[in-house]
Amino acid sequence: MSDDEGSRRHRAIEMRTQRDNRFQPHTPLGPGVEFDSIRRMLERWGPHAKRIGDDGAVISPFGDRSLVASVDTSVEGVHFKREWMSPQEIGYRSAVAALSDLAAMGAKPLGMLVAMAIPEGWRSTLDAISDGIGEAAQLAQAPVLGGDMSRSSELALTITVLGTARDVLYRNAARPGNSVYVTGRLGGPGAALAAFSENRSPLEAYRNRFVRPVARIEESIWLAEHGAVGAIDISDGLSSDLCHIATASGVSIKIDLTLVPVMEGVSAEAAAVSGEEYELAAVCNTDVDTAEFSKAFGLELTKIGVIESGGPVVQFLLDGESVEIPGGYLHFE
Amino acid sequence: MSDDEGSRRHRAIEMRTQRDNRFQPHTPLGPGVEFDSIRRMLERWGPHAKRIGDDGAVISPFGDRSLVASVDTSVEGVHFKREWMSPQEIGYRSAVAALSDLAAMGAKPLGMLVAMAIPEGWRSTLDAISDGIGEAAQLAQAPVLGGDMSRSSELALTITVLGTARDVLYRNAARPGNSVYVTGRLGGPGAALAAFSENRSPLEAYRNRFVRPVARIEESIWLAEHGAVGAIDISDGLSSDLCHIATASGVSIKIDLTLVPVMEGVSAEAAAVSGEEYELAAVCNTDVDTAEFSKAFGLELTKIGVIESGGPVVQFLLDGESVEIPGGYLHFE
Repeated sequence: MSDDEGSRRHRAIEMRTQRDNRFQPHTPLGPGVEFDSIRRMLERWGPHAKRIGDDGAVISPFGDRSLVASVDTSVEGVHFKREWMSPQEIGYRSAVAALSDLAAMGAKPLGMLVAMAIPEGWRSTLDAISDGIGEAAQLAQAPVLGGDMSRSSELALTITVLGTARDVLYRNAARPGNSVYVTGRLGGPGAALAAFSENRSPLEAYRNRFVRPVARIEESIWLAEHGAVGAIDISDGLSSDLCHIATASGVSIKIDLTLVPVMEGVSAEAAAVSGEEYELAAVCNTDVDTAEFSKAFGLELTKIGVIESGGPVVQFLLDGESVEIPGGYLHFE
Repeated sequence: MSDDEGSRRHRAIEMRTQRDNRFQPHTPLGPGVEFDSIRRMLERWGPHAKRIGDDGAVISPFGDRSLVASVDTSVEGVHFKREWMSPQEIGYRSAVAALSDLAAMGAKPLGMLVAMAIPEGWRSTLDAISDGIGEAAQLAQAPVLGGDMSRSSELALTITVLGTARDVLYRNAARPGNSVYVTGRLGGPGAALAAFSENRSPLEAYRNRFVRPVARIEESIWLAEHGAVGAIDISDGLSSDLCHIATASGVSIKIDLTLVPVMEGVSAEAAAVSGEEYELAAVCNTDVDTAEFSKAFGLELTKIGVIESGGPVVQFLLDGESVEIPGGYLHFE
């Protein structure tokens, strides 16, 4: 390395240090084997990983807004089975799952990068998969900006989403006195998955919620403008996802199970653990006009609980009594 | 949908149209089955895909620079075999392959998103894979900003890279009279792959070029400041990658095969089709001081050819005679 090279590297390191101000520390992660793996990676990466732990990465400031980026992979046999959905639905759903992370951060999409790993036996469905992705791109106004294609032995769609936010919704922003809201009605995807796993046909209403989720992007931006300080998209189930907020914020979350909005025929207990919802759980520091929200989006918004000090813990209450819900109720640390 | 909803959507569409100015039309794509697939997708996506066809997506203007994003997937059994490399080398190499796309665009990294699809049998190697990714993050000053983990039946590492550039290097910028330069010495990865595929151990020097490539990021920024107008990273082989530039720019590229810098023991013909190099081919509109480059980076920079009008075509010349090189020499349109 010449002297010139030495001074070049040195200058680069200085710039790096300045740029580090764009990032904040990691967000505390919830319990679970997956998160244990991530914690171990973060230890190994040390300063070479920045502010991990939200639905999306935030690079701020970037222009007059923050840049938000996230990635989500849908793998055949893990996230879905081929017989459950049409190729177009698989493409659509994979893109929405990723776009939903932008919604969770209060970000408006700039676009998507689409990485497809395609086995020989799926080649003939490429047009239909593309159509599904295109449909999601159109609905979310998130054009495809690039991507990657490779052969593989199982279908894997990895969608990277890029967006910007003025008011970023973080998981660590919940404070005692805040209220917890949820969009839509829960339980459909869980009911559909239960049917699929028993080789039954799910009711059409449940199936639709599984194969045709909607990323709540405009809704999220509206919420950020009307008191929301934090949010998460319900991909692992309300109970598990609230755990992430409780851990990240170091708070106690109390949810009134009778208030959890459910689809017809689904119990509140089942709705509280139904994943793949892609509805939003939002933490707000003011009362939100739920009627105004519903009028604007044709979608329910329901206050389901409150943030208190203590924890981190998520408690589901039924007639004032604590109810055990998998993924919730446990103290975790 | 209420009237409020209608006006909201309408406003969003207007913003979208304004934002469309950030993007330019698609870049013409080269020949090949993969690109036929992409062309078909672009037809289907219509306005919902923007400016596809470079090494990275460019969103411009974004602050006082352009935002550059790219994604690259490395799949076990497709891009590498487990017995060829250590898990750490697999992680390192996957990240560098993605970071190299930023180099091809003249972009300085902001960071990476790491999506890992991990089979059961690879779980015990997760630390080592992470270490390799961390090493690449450190070298390129590209911290891990987020990611995704899922189960799978084959290892697939999908790395999204984000960066910014003041002077973006596009594939469509080559003009008659420009010169073509290449960094480093080519042929090592091709020779290593040839050995691997015959179950021989490659020479250590060749193997190193395959398992320890370097993303030429600082080099690329230097080139952009010293006359480079376009570039591509050599992932498919010099011949194929120059085809992309010829097609995108609508020019004839003439390469003097005797000038192609090769590793010891590799023929120029083999070097011209050696992929996975992650060296840069750059098109410059002025003569570049190659000695100054070499002094700065401890790496060769070699002028290997010129851009002429006509084409799109890539021609390799030996003593003034055209030599057929797979991926090159053919008129393609």
